[in-house]
Amino acid sequence: MSEVNDKAWRDPVDLTPIGVVRGGRETSDDDYWGGFESRIELDPQRFTDDALAALDTFSHVLIVYHFHPLNPASEESGGRHPRGRDDWPLVGIFAQRAKRRPNRIGVTICRVLSVDGPVLSVEGLDAMEGTPVLDLKPHMREFEPRGEVFQPQWSHEVMANYYSESP
Amino acid sequence: MSEVNDKAWRDPVDLTPIGVVRGGRETSDDDYWGGFESRIELDPQRFTDDALAALDTFSHVLIVYHFHPLNPASEESGGRHPRGRDDWPLVGIFAQRAKRRPNRIGVTICRVLSVDGPVLSVEGLDAMEGTPVLDLKPHMREFEPRGEVFQPQWSHEVMANYYSESP
Repeated sequence: MSEVNDKAWRDPVDLTPIGVVRGGRETSDDDYWGGFESRIELDPQRFTDDALAALDTFSHVLIVYHFHPLNPASEESGGRHPRGRDDWPLVGIFAQRAKRRPNRIGVTICRVLSVDGPVLSVEGLDAMEGTPVLDLKPHMREFEPRGEVFQPQWSHEVMANYYSESP
Repeated sequence: MSEVNDKAWRDPVDLTPIGVVRGGRETSDDDYWGGFESRIELDPQRFTDDALAALDTFSHVLIVYHFHPLNPASEESGGRHPRGRDDWPLVGIFAQRAKRRPNRIGVTICRVLSVDGPVLSVEGLDAMEGTPVLDLKPHMREFEPRGEVFQPQWSHEVMANYYSESP
């Protein structure tokens, strides 16, 4: 089996967006996503309205998306200073949430505002207008971190205004 | 801008795995992932050891992966009963975590056990041996759900043994 796996795991993974972000920002911003409302519209060519059925019986949804093409395309393959700030430590690309990352995937847990047929309205989605969406999953307490949670101080500083309301 | 977006958002998204799950299970199981330990090995052709630097200063990591090819390939585009159980309600594919989902993406938050060069050891990764990994992100408190969290009763029942220790 490992021989099969060794051959297979590097194969390209070809995905098709399930929908698109509407009402998103027109620019890429690092901060002030607090209270921001937008919508995800499913591709009507692929899904029935049933695809979102009962999602509004959950308070939150996990959204997997692909960064908007207007975001920087270069990829980091080692370490960097978060947001280019030398006073924060040099950390690996997989130890930060920077956009210049391999595969350009974003994952955000948002509050569900409403479901209306093929349209999901959410609060707190940090994605630009026209962003392709790859998956939606209901948030369940059972998938939250198990055991003690900790993180370094610089990461709190990076996030200080991320979910603040716009000033 | 919306004209550009309308053209672009349905474009295929072509990804390249960043690494692979080793020490994973050889079969796909619905339950008993509690305490299960496995590793993610980064692709040494693409990344320096710096790519994981400082990830072990976080307690948890969010892992984005693509379901193993041995998992069922058929896709649900509407609703279904979770795990085929008629006593649970019919809910949309995006209101459940079923494997038969578009794009076959898994997202799991795991405890970081250690980082050793290009190898990340974790606890609680519900992925099979040889699963392609698409991204790793440090877990930050600031990305946890904001506001009241709730979910329907059936979802607690589905998850009852998911993170139990093996019986």
